[in-house]
Amino acid sequence: MKALIVNQLNAPPIWAEMPDPRPNEAEVIINIKAAALNHRDLFITKGQYAGIQTPCILGSDGAGEWNGTQVILYPALAWGDNPPYQSKEFRVLGMPENGTFAEQISIPKSNIFPMPEHLNWEQAAALPLAGLTAWRTLFSRCQLKKGEKVLITGIGGGVALTALQFAIAAGAEVFVTSSTSAKIEHATKLGAKGGANYRESDWDKRLKQEAGGFDVIIDSAGGDGFALFPSLCNPGARVGFYGGTQGKVNGLSLQPLFWKQISLLGSTMGSPQEFQTMLDFVQQHEIVPVVDSVYPMSAGAKAFEKMSLGEQFGKIVLKQS
Amino acid sequence: MKALIVNQLNAPPIWAEMPDPRPNEAEVIINIKAAALNHRDLFITKGQYAGIQTPCILGSDGAGEWNGTQVILYPALAWGDNPPYQSKEFRVLGMPENGTFAEQISIPKSNIFPMPEHLNWEQAAALPLAGLTAWRTLFSRCQLKKGEKVLITGIGGGVALTALQFAIAAGAEVFVTSSTSAKIEHATKLGAKGGANYRESDWDKRLKQEAGGFDVIIDSAGGDGFALFPSLCNPGARVGFYGGTQGKVNGLSLQPLFWKQISLLGSTMGSPQEFQTMLDFVQQHEIVPVVDSVYPMSAGAKAFEKMSLGEQFGKIVLKQS
Repeated sequence: MKALIVNQLNAPPIWAEMPDPRPNEAEVIINIKAAALNHRDLFITKGQYAGIQTPCILGSDGAGEWNGTQVILYPALAWGDNPPYQSKEFRVLGMPENGTFAEQISIPKSNIFPMPEHLNWEQAAALPLAGLTAWRTLFSRCQLKKGEKVLITGIGGGVALTALQFAIAAGAEVFVTSSTSAKIEHATKLGAKGGANYRESDWDKRLKQEAGGFDVIIDSAGGDGFALFPSLCNPGARVGFYGGTQGKVNGLSLQPLFWKQISLLGSTMGSPQEFQTMLDFVQQHEIVPVVDSVYPMSAGAKAFEKMSLGEQFGKIVLKQS
Repeated sequence: MKALIVNQLNAPPIWAEMPDPRPNEAEVIINIKAAALNHRDLFITKGQYAGIQTPCILGSDGAGEWNGTQVILYPALAWGDNPPYQSKEFRVLGMPENGTFAEQISIPKSNIFPMPEHLNWEQAAALPLAGLTAWRTLFSRCQLKKGEKVLITGIGGGVALTALQFAIAAGAEVFVTSSTSAKIEHATKLGAKGGANYRESDWDKRLKQEAGGFDVIIDSAGGDGFALFPSLCNPGARVGFYGGTQGKVNGLSLQPLFWKQISLLGSTMGSPQEFQTMLDFVQQHEIVPVVDSVYPMSAGAKAFEKMSLGEQFGKIVLKQS
């Protein structure tokens, strides 16, 4: 079969012949119809990941055909039996195991789920990792309730956008931040009530005046901006975070956090059970993931180039040609 | 009646004549038998608190007689109807309302609870604020379970010591930190499995080697030491904090927090319902609060002097002479 492989680090992935997958007894072969990029994939091509082995087939997100049915893939292995946290054997799909950027993948049968009927291949492929991370962070960890006010930072990324869609579908009032006003505007078209450009001074004070404080904040940046959250929070607020791209947090004051009974909740993607619950929610509310752009999988190097610019709004998708 | 009053800031409180309390319809008069100091009281005498009014009667903790029965006082007013967080009207007993450092106090009838039968006046007076804060932080917020490993920092203070006793009674394995080895030794006599002196280099690494990681950490210091917690935590751990005496937190890395699904949970003292549950637990396990020293209330200035040295192990109590 053909696959998009990483042969050497700091070089574009190449579309090349690889051995056909050989499933073990618990596995099935999926004909991948579409896949989607995550930052994890880009980091691996740049060598910014532990234990990289080459050649490897990247890709955590995928949708395809199995036995004449349309399936969507749970994007990880070995979560384990414990809902609160993953097992030590847990790993995301794609490196070291072969991922979804290929014509076929051999995957445990327990990883395949019926694809939501209202989605096409590209939309379905855009959902798994971002949707599952948004789901766990918003609902399992932050226990978002109808009518609450939510702030989602760095709108434009897959998780942030899916969190926006999920929170609106759950009846929350959502505000966003971004470094570009165009992305904020785009988010308001998707239903956000407002937003702030965090490059502007006093953005936090103006946002608090506009929104009146938040019950839930969803963040993947960390860094010094994280220290602004306590004063943006309402009593009883939950701050869910699943990344820390801006580095360590400095200047975090505990007094408003304990006095307002605030919870800071680390989160990742979730369990297969959470994946099923997320898919049910997506189907029920007919949520369509935001797709930024679609590339033929055979020209996947261009998709990686696009992602490294960081200007996308939504998922970058690879389609089988 | 006589009371220990703060007449001017940065001066010792004085035992002086004050008007007798005049209860409104919802209030009753308690003859205070014993009271206990909290850091809040000391901070107020030093002017380190918002909205201080003088003269005032301090004191949040108290036990006494009402109508021929022995009662212990819920140490705050107006928590409100919402278990997750207190109302805007919430305030701790003692300044601006008159507190427990007096012969009598007029207090809402809903603030009085039957005193646990195995405690004497001094032990009962040592319980309310510290016990309620420890209870809420350990159980309501951190959801401590039997068999878990707990780290309690800065052992010696009232909340930390009560948390130690509660956690042991709940079947947890407890470790402590302190700046003095004598306090760690004292804590092991109360049932702690071990501990570390945080003034020593690499205390965190040695403690992790000894204990193997923690499921719950209870802290009131904050500061730079807080940034060591993520690596001390087991997956799914909860860090409960109810103070920040060492200032803002710097250098906090989010990666281990989200990958290990850790929760950082701000907490304070709790609601009247939590107070009742805490009292039931204390009665059931016959927990006796650790009393450092007892002073006649009329000589209360000496108790404040003792607290400002910071060498106590347990509560500093005032007894009616």
